Amino acid sequence: MTWKTAVADIPYGGAKGGIGCNPRDLSKSELERLTRVFTQKIHDLIGIHTDVPAPDMGTNAQTMAWILDEYSKFHGHSPAVVTGKPIDLGGSLGREAATGRGVVYATEALLAEYGKSIKGMTFGIQGFGNVGSWASRLIHEKGGKVIAVSDITGALKNPNGIDIPELLKHKEATGSLKSFNGGDSMDPNELLVHECDVLIPCALGGVLNRLGSIAEHLGPINYCAVRYVKAKFIIEAANHPTDPEADEILSKKGVIILPDIYANAGGVTVSYFEWVQNIQGFMWDEEKVNQELKKYMTKAFHNIKNMCQSHDCNLRMGAFTLGVNRVARATILRGWEA
Amino acid sequence: MTWKTAVADIPYGGAKGGIGCNPRDLSKSELERLTRVFTQKIHDLIGIHTDVPAPDMGTNAQTMAWILDEYSKFHGHSPAVVTGKPIDLGGSLGREAATGRGVVYATEALLAEYGKSIKGMTFGIQGFGNVGSWASRLIHEKGGKVIAVSDITGALKNPNGIDIPELLKHKEATGSLKSFNGGDSMDPNELLVHECDVLIPCALGGVLNRLGSIAEHLGPINYCAVRYVKAKFIIEAANHPTDPEADEILSKKGVIILPDIYANAGGVTVSYFEWVQNIQGFMWDEEKVNQELKKYMTKAFHNIKNMCQSHDCNLRMGAFTLGVNRVARATILRGWEA
Amino acid sequence: MTWKTAVADIPYGGAKGGIGCNPRDLSKSELERLTRVFTQKIHDLIGIHTDVPAPDMGTNAQTMAWILDEYSKFHGHSPAVVTGKPIDLGGSLGREAATGRGVVYATEALLAEYGKSIKGMTFGIQGFGNVGSWASRLIHEKGGKVIAVSDITGALKNPNGIDIPELLKHKEATGSLKSFNGGDSMDPNELLVHECDVLIPCALGGVLNRLGSIAEHLGPINYCAVRYVKAKFIIEAANHPTDPEADEILSKKGVIILPDIYANAGGVTVSYFEWVQNIQGFMWDEEKVNQELKKYMTKAFHNIKNMCQSHDCNLRMGAFTLGVNRVARATILRGWEA
Amino acid sequence: MTWKTAVADIPYGGAKGGIGCNPRDLSKSELERLTRVFTQKIHDLIGIHTDVPAPDMGTNAQTMAWILDEYSKFHGHSPAVVTGKPIDLGGSLGREAATGRGVVYATEALLAEYGKSIKGMTFGIQGFGNVGSWASRLIHEKGGKVIAVSDITGALKNPNGIDIPELLKHKEATGSLKSFNGGDSMDPNELLVHECDVLIPCALGGVLNRLGSIAEHLGPINYCAVRYVKAKFIIEAANHPTDPEADEILSKKGVIILPDIYANAGGVTVSYFEWVQNIQGFMWDEEKVNQELKKYMTKAFHNIKNMCQSHDCNLRMGAFTLGVNRVARATILRGWEA
Amino acid sequence: MTWKTAVADIPYGGAKGGIGCNPRDLSKSELERLTRVFTQKIHDLIGIHTDVPAPDMGTNAQTMAWILDEYSKFHGHSPAVVTGKPIDLGGSLGREAATGRGVVYATEALLAEYGKSIKGMTFGIQGFGNVGSWASRLIHEKGGKVIAVSDITGALKNPNGIDIPELLKHKEATGSLKSFNGGDSMDPNELLVHECDVLIPCALGGVLNRLGSIAEHLGPINYCAVRYVKAKFIIEAANHPTDPEADEILSKKGVIILPDIYANAGGVTVSYFEWVQNIQGFMWDEEKVNQELKKYMTKAFHNIKNMCQSHDCNLRMGAFTLGVNRVARATILRGWEA
Amino acid sequence: MTWKTAVADIPYGGAKGGIGCNPRDLSKSELERLTRVFTQKIHDLIGIHTDVPAPDMGTNAQTMAWILDEYSKFHGHSPAVVTGKPIDLGGSLGREAATGRGVVYATEALLAEYGKSIKGMTFGIQGFGNVGSWASRLIHEKGGKVIAVSDITGALKNPNGIDIPELLKHKEATGSLKSFNGGDSMDPNELLVHECDVLIPCALGGVLNRLGSIAEHLGPINYCAVRYVKAKFIIEAANHPTDPEADEILSKKGVIILPDIYANAGGVTVSYFEWVQNIQGFMWDEEKVNQELKKYMTKAFHNIKNMCQSHDCNLRMGAFTLGVNRVARATILRGWEA
Repeated sequence: MTWKTAVADIPYGGAKGGIGCNPRDLSKSELERLTRVFTQKIHDLIGIHTDVPAPDMGTNAQTMAWILDEYSKFHGHSPAVVTGKPIDLGGSLGREAATGRGVVYATEALLAEYGKSIKGMTFGIQGFGNVGSWASRLIHEKGGKVIAVSDITGALKNPNGIDIPELLKHKEATGSLKSFNGGDSMDPNELLVHECDVLIPCALGGVLNRLGSIAEHLGPINYCAVRYVKAKFIIEAANHPTDPEADEILSKKGVIILPDIYANAGGVTVSYFEWVQNIQGFMWDEEKVNQELKKYMTKAFHNIKNMCQSHDCNLRMGAFTLGVNRVARATILRGWEA
Repeated sequence: MTWKTAVADIPYGGAKGGIGCNPRDLSKSELERLTRVFTQKIHDLIGIHTDVPAPDMGTNAQTMAWILDEYSKFHGHSPAVVTGKPIDLGGSLGREAATGRGVVYATEALLAEYGKSIKGMTFGIQGFGNVGSWASRLIHEKGGKVIAVSDITGALKNPNGIDIPELLKHKEATGSLKSFNGGDSMDPNELLVHECDVLIPCALGGVLNRLGSIAEHLGPINYCAVRYVKAKFIIEAANHPTDPEADEILSKKGVIILPDIYANAGGVTVSYFEWVQNIQGFMWDEEKVNQELKKYMTKAFHNIKNMCQSHDCNLRMGAFTLGVNRVARATILRGWEA
Repeated sequence: MTWKTAVADIPYGGAKGGIGCNPRDLSKSELERLTRVFTQKIHDLIGIHTDVPAPDMGTNAQTMAWILDEYSKFHGHSPAVVTGKPIDLGGSLGREAATGRGVVYATEALLAEYGKSIKGMTFGIQGFGNVGSWASRLIHEKGGKVIAVSDITGALKNPNGIDIPELLKHKEATGSLKSFNGGDSMDPNELLVHECDVLIPCALGGVLNRLGSIAEHLGPINYCAVRYVKAKFIIEAANHPTDPEADEILSKKGVIILPDIYANAGGVTVSYFEWVQNIQGFMWDEEKVNQELKKYMTKAFHNIKNMCQSHDCNLRMGAFTLGVNRVARATILRGWEA
Repeated sequence: MTWKTAVADIPYGGAKGGIGCNPRDLSKSELERLTRVFTQKIHDLIGIHTDVPAPDMGTNAQTMAWILDEYSKFHGHSPAVVTGKPIDLGGSLGREAATGRGVVYATEALLAEYGKSIKGMTFGIQGFGNVGSWASRLIHEKGGKVIAVSDITGALKNPNGIDIPELLKHKEATGSLKSFNGGDSMDPNELLVHECDVLIPCALGGVLNRLGSIAEHLGPINYCAVRYVKAKFIIEAANHPTDPEADEILSKKGVIILPDIYANAGGVTVSYFEWVQNIQGFMWDEEKVNQELKKYMTKAFHNIKNMCQSHDCNLRMGAFTLGVNRVARATILRGWEA
Repeated sequence: MTWKTAVADIPYGGAKGGIGCNPRDLSKSELERLTRVFTQKIHDLIGIHTDVPAPDMGTNAQTMAWILDEYSKFHGHSPAVVTGKPIDLGGSLGREAATGRGVVYATEALLAEYGKSIKGMTFGIQGFGNVGSWASRLIHEKGGKVIAVSDITGALKNPNGIDIPELLKHKEATGSLKSFNGGDSMDPNELLVHECDVLIPCALGGVLNRLGSIAEHLGPINYCAVRYVKAKFIIEAANHPTDPEADEILSKKGVIILPDIYANAGGVTVSYFEWVQNIQGFMWDEEKVNQELKKYMTKAFHNIKNMCQSHDCNLRMGAFTLGVNRVARATILRGWEA
Repeated sequence: MTWKTAVADIPYGGAKGGIGCNPRDLSKSELERLTRVFTQKIHDLIGIHTDVPAPDMGTNAQTMAWILDEYSKFHGHSPAVVTGKPIDLGGSLGREAATGRGVVYATEALLAEYGKSIKGMTFGIQGFGNVGSWASRLIHEKGGKVIAVSDITGALKNPNGIDIPELLKHKEATGSLKSFNGGDSMDPNELLVHECDVLIPCALGGVLNRLGSIAEHLGPINYCAVRYVKAKFIIEAANHPTDPEADEILSKKGVIILPDIYANAGGVTVSYFEWVQNIQGFMWDEEKVNQELKKYMTKAFHNIKNMCQSHDCNLRMGAFTLGVNRVARATILRGWEA
């Protein structure tokens, strides 16, 4: 997280903390009271300029609302103390779509480097949850052809491009990709090795690996042997979808990988924008949020690219070098004589 | 106030407090000392993120300056603790004109809904104080014809449109609407029932009521029996100019009323902008203030309109529904287990 | 400093404080520890809304980084507590060039008043350090001809305009203006009296004075008898380059002087922008910094000009009147009954 | 309360606040949650050096414990923020008996003035709750004869003195004064007019009044016509047991009245000692509490006495004069130029 | 620690924290800087009413002085934030001797219960460090006969009582118990089983255990098979010198054991007195410290004794019951509805 | 001041600050407002644990009351922030007499060292203001003979001892020592050289000097040539009454001088007691104040004496050594690695 925010040039570090419990086992009232007591215990450790919680697995916008309410008893009304809040309590417009949108801006920046654009290229999208569906929708809007899509409920292909808005309605209505009549169903196992220009894994980690066998026990979103991958570009929308050995194989094949540390930073970037809006006491409209997100994603890409050139390395190494260097430089400047 | 700020989408609630005295009976030095001691007593109850005083009846920019000065002794320099300050101490440009300007933006939004614009329409303006004169000036600039105007000193009409800049000079010079040679004098009692497209009451509350008789004892700004009103649109620039029974009669006649809770929110909106500028440590130029005011007024109008459509109600009900819903939603999200 | 910030319309006052020592006699570790202990002693006296240190003689961006780090131990992370920080710790883009750039914006505003622009005019620049070299570079970019330049290492002239980018490379490479082949060397003593449209002293104070003799002991940047000055405009980029008697003589000759209190305010203005960015938690790109700097410099010029018209005085007196009036007005508004 | 604490020479003022509810209608859990939310709302208004709550009607030691616990979440562990706490959480030893014990010390001081002591004198005690029973027990220990006692359950007399320790056991066991075999039952209505040296009303206000009739509706503790009172001394352990007209009649009869404002100040005095012990972080043993209480009661008596002498007035007037003077003197010393 | 302070009736809980390092490997300057940085990190977690550090293994009065100095930079001069400080910085008189002195007061309280006193009884003391030597010295002063003493350097016996002041001089001079001519040297292994009335283990934990064999590898202070113990009373001055099985065996033999949780609480009690003195801003003379220590030790003994009677248990169980009950009672009173 | 408080073993340092004005030129209202504004400016620099103002030249108890009142607006009611307050606002009993009483306790400690006591000895007192009159009164009470007294109004002698209570009444009534019929008038110039056992200068500094001539211009309290001094003991109740050369001469003559740094420390000691009482929230009775003052004065004398013995020096040198050593020891313990 520290390296990701450093790459995105956001003034944040990284930390995690939590309560050992299964939120699904608790009633809403229990969750609320647990969250409040937790906030009472840590209210002096979090803060607008100290540590700003945001939702992660098992928590959501409502949880942030409770933290905000309880924290504010101690420190006065402080919307900036959490991000990922409900919009009614100071959440940012555009945050829901932010990771998917960031993936698309990142893809545009990468393709531009190769004289290409989304328009007219073909895309395979693994995962059709929040990130995958937003990415698909935006690619479709920009004239890209999403020719294959998969999620936990199945997989679809259409060499002329799937009609994403229709697919979204279908999924909204049925909860599944199945029986959509705008494409042919396919084996989800084949998605990652389907012929396409750009492959965007938006689901689990480790799906691109050295092994040819399919790790069945990991469920319906399948893993592939990277030697069969046919895409020219891989955009890591999921967290670490490519394992280190696979990375090397893909490199040798000349596949260009946009690393997760950069590619999916749209979410934390808009979290940061939410905090900025709260601090400034002034909310942005959605257009402004998206436009700033594009600026941040594009600038970060060029910073990574420069790093790759000066260090002669690939994008993943360039991104890490960028992040680590930023933190190191700041640390040295702050001084050693505590 | 809470509903008004909720309609305007400003992160404020509503509260009032004061000292029981007649400021006109006190010398400036007494007012200053009274204000300072008052501030000493409440300094822990007001604050940038708690409660932000602004001028109301009997107080003004100078009062805010004293509060700011005294408050800052306790909490350090804090321009955002009051709004409506003198510009030299962090007040916002454009605040003087804000309510009148907001009225005009609101009118534009309403007319646009009916495929109309200010240009070429006729206007009757009751009241020519801060709000009425700024509204007149801006309507004139935008090509509207102000064909009738009244205030405490008299009333004027000119079917070709009064030359507002000239009238302002005249009033500046003589302190009165009388003997202006760019129109014919008229009985102020007739203003509200004068023939015009848009009627804008900018003076007292309750002027539009069911009764035919004129409530003389209420002074020269007169009340009317709404059944004689000829305007197609009424913009409530004054606070509650229309009494509930009159509201119903006008509704039946098909007169469109833009409710005060929205129409005159320009003042508090720019107070909010002043606070934002102070918080951000960076003042806006007047153009930016006006442009943001227009954005807020226009967005609020569309939010009200949407509410009217989904609840099938008139603009007043739509505005209240919008405001109450916003507060309710936030309250529920903050949670119940205190 | 108080008058300068009032002229620039920046919400700052003026104060200085320091440690009596020669930084060159101390190791970096000693400097760091001295800075930290100093910060421990004054941490309650400085602050984001109280007193914001910035580098001056003997301190630099690194010093600010140490103050920031130590201060933050007491008050939490507070980048806005110092300006002139390293960019990696929240410093503003564009701050290095800010004074020189401000000089050029000021010059443009002045020339526009006379129906002229930088393009095509001739310039003499005394001093080629941070301020002089940035001013030269920007004048060159805007089509002005820098026909004479001097610094501690020598002086150059070229009636067709010196190629500033080349000269900068030469100085970068050799550390000196000498032996640059894009112009003829000249006696530095002659620079101030060289024929040119606009003279910009960017070096020491007091260089323009009544005396004809050259004050040799003051070193290679020489002083001149103002009666020989041939420029039509003098832009005071240095602090008080013109002594009071010289001021009078130049006035009588009809030379227009842009006073230092305004002309070199670009540095403190961008310091203020840095503070604003830190407070807002959101950094500006360099284009935005420069564009706001231009706005501030231009607005200030017109404010001075208005003051000159209403008080019938020259620019220097107009600038001081503007500054003093601003402070006086604010002081009166804050009130007397403490 | 302010005058009482001033008489007792305790650095406290007086204030009351509460929640409008009937605690008997609420469950213990509801009471606890109500108390906590109340504390959350007022935590910035109470405080060790601001306002120190203590139990009154409808609240008790447990309520104080909850306030303490909730307050401490905001301000850290702060036992001194309430008095009347449970001893396990920092309550003072001796607080339960304090009012009754104070009454006895006051009585001793008064009698000493007349060359008498408790030993051998006869006492009538109206009310046998916390105050009356502790007073009785201590008078018995000091050799006084309690010859008549009454409470809500009945009345008893014994001209040789009732065996108080036995009576306490009897009441503990049966909950009533009835059927105690160490005295004869009597009509409670007669207690106030029973023959005795010292009469101590420890129950309701207004019991000593001008009227001969008995206010039956006020319940079994009866009111008397003061003209029948036979005691030489009345110690006002209850709050304002004597109404103003009665006061005058008794005065004329030569009865000496020790006013409530002083006589029952033992409770608030030990509340103050509790606060002192909490502030000092060091608890006193019970002997020390009682000994300091005696000092305070005795000193206050002499201060009142001096006031009576210098102002030639009775004890009630002396006590009020003492209290009002103390507050007035402090107010003047603090100054007027706020 | 929590139970020990509850038994001693001190308003403290228990907690430990530290730095993983070997202080002996660090220079004094390194120790100081390490302590300061540690204090900078935890300064918000410790505090006069929060957590009060005191010296333990590897730290001493000097360490406390550094913590105090660094903490005071953040929170102002705060001597009460640590105990065990040097006397020159607010440490308490009598703290050095406190544990040993407390052991003696505890012994007196126990013996008194059996109609005995120190005078004339015989004592065996294992360990002659801070605790053992102070206990010996005070027993000697009170007329007790210390007939056997051991430490890491050897063991001594003298059936007529060793002259402790002389032995202290000897040890001061030679650093050893050896070759003292006021007694016969003996095998240290025999100390615990030596014939005496009262045995006081002042060294390691676990020395009294079930095993007959001597755990040689644990060094010269030896462990004993408790079945050979001849003392009638054991005072646990060391921490848990008796293992659970040994406890049972001794119980059956009728040996009375005064448990460590009470017996060695003199140290923390005087730490608490130090804090009280700092809070009160007023230091006690040594006589007052000792006299209060005696009060606390004696009161605690009687509280334990009462607990033993009401629960029919031995002293160890009585002490734990006392401590746990105190904490439980306070916890319940503070309430559950957080 | 730092050395004096170190000698007295009070946890205070020394500092002075003030306003440059002549209080006699200001009205009471002006003084109050000046004091309040001054307090507003320094309220963050003074404080209960930081810097505690007390009256000095030109300020008094009323000034302290104003500071207390104004300070408390910022920090809540804080009686301990000043000492020397009016008793009604938390001032200490016994403070008025404290310096004089301390002088007498110091004298007793010194005489005891020589096997003497006040009773029966003869005393000369220069100065009969607050210090001199209290010292005289107490010496008289203890059986000492005050045989000569002087002040600004004259001088008196009576070889049998002046009746001090009568003299005090006389001075109270007449404002002067003149025409008191219990002694013979004498030349004030002779007081310092009058025959007596103990000489106590209670007036100006520098009165005991090498010069024989009388420094007339210094007013009626006269200076003496120390070679004529006949007393065996000099108690420096005034600040530095003895100049360094005189000190040496007196030393050689065998006169014992009790240095001011110790002898007049009674005032600051009771100031400290006032602060302690305020901090503890509990006021002492006068007896306790005097008894603690005696303890402090006596203990300090023995500490000085020990220092004299170990360093083989006179009392003045012993006192300074004691004070400087205390501060040095504390400084070293606090550490060097800031």
